[in-house]
Amino acid sequence: MTRGTEELTQHYSRQFNEELEAIRTRLLEMGGLVERQLKRSLRALVKGNSELGEQVVHDDYQVNRLEVSIDEECSRVIALRQPTASDLRFVMAVIKSITDLERIGDEAEKIGFLSSRLATQERPENRYKEIKHLGRQVREMLRDTLDALARLDAEAALRIAQEDSNVDDEYEAIMRQSITVMMEDPRSIRRVLDTLWAARALERIGDHAVNICEHVVYMAHGMDIRHVSVEQVAAEAGVDL
Amino acid sequence: MTRGTEELTQHYSRQFNEELEAIRTRLLEMGGLVERQLKRSLRALVKGNSELGEQVVHDDYQVNRLEVSIDEECSRVIALRQPTASDLRFVMAVIKSITDLERIGDEAEKIGFLSSRLATQERPENRYKEIKHLGRQVREMLRDTLDALARLDAEAALRIAQEDSNVDDEYEAIMRQSITVMMEDPRSIRRVLDTLWAARALERIGDHAVNICEHVVYMAHGMDIRHVSVEQVAAEAGVDL
Repeated sequence: MTRGTEELTQHYSRQFNEELEAIRTRLLEMGGLVERQLKRSLRALVKGNSELGEQVVHDDYQVNRLEVSIDEECSRVIALRQPTASDLRFVMAVIKSITDLERIGDEAEKIGFLSSRLATQERPENRYKEIKHLGRQVREMLRDTLDALARLDAEAALRIAQEDSNVDDEYEAIMRQSITVMMEDPRSIRRVLDTLWAARALERIGDHAVNICEHVVYMAHGMDIRHVSVEQVAAEAGVDL
Repeated sequence: MTRGTEELTQHYSRQFNEELEAIRTRLLEMGGLVERQLKRSLRALVKGNSELGEQVVHDDYQVNRLEVSIDEECSRVIALRQPTASDLRFVMAVIKSITDLERIGDEAEKIGFLSSRLATQERPENRYKEIKHLGRQVREMLRDTLDALARLDAEAALRIAQEDSNVDDEYEAIMRQSITVMMEDPRSIRRVLDTLWAARALERIGDHAVNICEHVVYMAHGMDIRHVSVEQVAAEAGVDL
């Protein structure tokens, strides 16, 4: 290789790395935005703050805008740089993760909408306690997921995916209790259903976080763990859960 | 170009085209499978056939398996063939469409599960009439979507995306009526909720069909229409809706 070619190659590869780095930064920016949307939607619900709920609904366009722009950037990198192996895996995992982040944004928007509708109704003290609890669990799960994504930590990602069953159990408990409340006081049905929709949105956010964790594992190991039990993957990867 | 190189190029490009064709075939196979799962889950629900419902739940693994295998094939083509322009758009749109198809499969699985739970309960004649009606709408929408995907018909895709509001309206009507029924007869709450979850699954299938339609438009025109109103895109593309 002549000195000129070598410099060109280095220049090219530095530029490519910078592009990948820029994608990673934007991905984490999108994650941070979605985290904030979720946090605000939950506060709106618990505090009965309809204005804040409407704001969350309004701000969802920012999440969508980021998704489209990162998606375009990824397609551009694939077309121009023709990445292979782990670089390609990274870009593919980003393309899939932003779809899940966007859907988490949609669920936060839904909670925002529900909170402004619920704000006009009487607030039941015990019900929101459960939503608060589930909300805390899911927010923690999302934060851990974004951390695992930032550090490409497949081991952490596997652990988070496994913890999702706690969220599912919590949701099922809320569901059972809601049915009891509605049966005892049919006038509460409308309100209880709205609260149940919010709980369901949280449960779905947990599912999307699991999807992102799966993308992290794929990014790190090139292993497709969708539709395979977490325990099985951990065993194969030699991870002690 | 010497005769040898030309032949090699032709050979290479023929092979590439065959690979893209194979991906398209598998994509439509997956679409057909998902369509069948939805059809069977609805029949199980309406007829109270719990065995059929369980079969749908069991067969979901076939959908998952197809998703993973098409996904791997797409990544392989990107890495080895480094497609550009419309070929790359095609592969990217397939990668996104199979995610939606897989989720449609999950919703059909959910309906299958609910149908086997509902089969143990008393069947309300009028309620299933509405589910039947919504189910017909959504199945038609899915079939049209798969047609548009097979023919890469962006105009049809835009029309289908617009019709989704009918599905949403229908779902809202079922929701309102369910609330009335539950208020009048609180003992029905458990059963009505299960029916409502099935209606919601159908509504979500409509949303995923819209996502696929958006991928079709992107594939055909390289235009990203997510988060933009259907009317706006149609106007820009000169399509008369």
